[in-house]
Amino acid sequence: MLVDPKAISPAALYQFMISVVVPRPIAFVSTISGDGRLNAAPFSYFIPLTNEPPLLGISINRRRGVLKDTLRNIEDTGEFVVNVVGEPLAERMVRTSGDWPEDVDEFELTGLTPVASERVKPPRVGESPVSLECRRHQVIELGATSFVVGEILLAHVNDQVLTEGRVDVAKLRPLGRLGGDGYSVVRDVIHLARPRVEPRPA
Amino acid sequence: MLVDPKAISPAALYQFMISVVVPRPIAFVSTISGDGRLNAAPFSYFIPLTNEPPLLGISINRRRGVLKDTLRNIEDTGEFVVNVVGEPLAERMVRTSGDWPEDVDEFELTGLTPVASERVKPPRVGESPVSLECRRHQVIELGATSFVVGEILLAHVNDQVLTEGRVDVAKLRPLGRLGGDGYSVVRDVIHLARPRVEPRPA
Repeated sequence: MLVDPKAISPAALYQFMISVVVPRPIAFVSTISGDGRLNAAPFSYFIPLTNEPPLLGISINRRRGVLKDTLRNIEDTGEFVVNVVGEPLAERMVRTSGDWPEDVDEFELTGLTPVASERVKPPRVGESPVSLECRRHQVIELGATSFVVGEILLAHVNDQVLTEGRVDVAKLRPLGRLGGDGYSVVRDVIHLARPRVEPRPA
Repeated sequence: MLVDPKAISPAALYQFMISVVVPRPIAFVSTISGDGRLNAAPFSYFIPLTNEPPLLGISINRRRGVLKDTLRNIEDTGEFVVNVVGEPLAERMVRTSGDWPEDVDEFELTGLTPVASERVKPPRVGESPVSLECRRHQVIELGATSFVVGEILLAHVNDQVLTEGRVDVAKLRPLGRLGGDGYSVVRDVIHLARPRVEPRPA
């Protein structure tokens, strides 16, 4: 089958794109508005960019209502926290993704615990196994989306997801985003080492 | 545990970032050099950006050898193909990720089949279930990385991964990238619908 993006509707194109770029990591983003209201919303257009400096990116479509609260808060305060979503958080995270009015505090809505951050104003999600405190580095406009680039200032890792001081994916149990309303869980892990290539003799 | 990016080595920071932003989708990117040499290499810093227009992004670290062939080819020709990696492609994809000299054709190396694209010069990977022919939209320098933004011109989907005309994740069997040398497979799919929020009465 051939899919020509110009020959299908924007909605069909969106459904196609989210069904083939899979599985996607989820950034559960907590922010605070200029007047102190908390917000939390999930995004799966999420990418690590580089470790020099530690940058990550989140694409926030300007046309979707609830997402705009996050974008506006990041634009207003320059700060946000990316919380990792393990399986036990799944249902509460999805509940925050509704098109809730601007004055709804998704922490209250879902019973999640806002815990004070160390270097930024927005709180992290206490139930999240890993939280990344971020400062806005740049916001890049690309078509209908705002691509928010943030620098990680500090990371919190719950000791329960560590094995010998490292994050253990079997304990992290990260949720991945698929097409439609699907999510993947990490059950089996395959290990495939990158090949070592010896330099050719001169 | 607290992780302060400024207090650990770049290598440790890289390992930390790839272990917490998981699972990541994989872009197996095929390109062609100005003088006609083929190249294929996998990237897991990969994101859909928006469907208006259909943009995706790949972060290519300028310091890693093999990746530079892909970046240089995209800069030279303005074109690339993103091939989706299903489980049956795993070992050949990983084999291409070695630091092969510039004149190595990873199609030949792995026995993958270059199939002529319709709208761009680089071939797609014949064994891939889905291939996205892309044109460079923009390359954005961010710290040590080049963030390549491409527009999808045309998508090829193998009919074997379709169910009633839609991509079926159980047939696609996408590989996800984890930390270390780990990869996830999609076995169980959880369905969680986004809540419907009724507008408040005026």
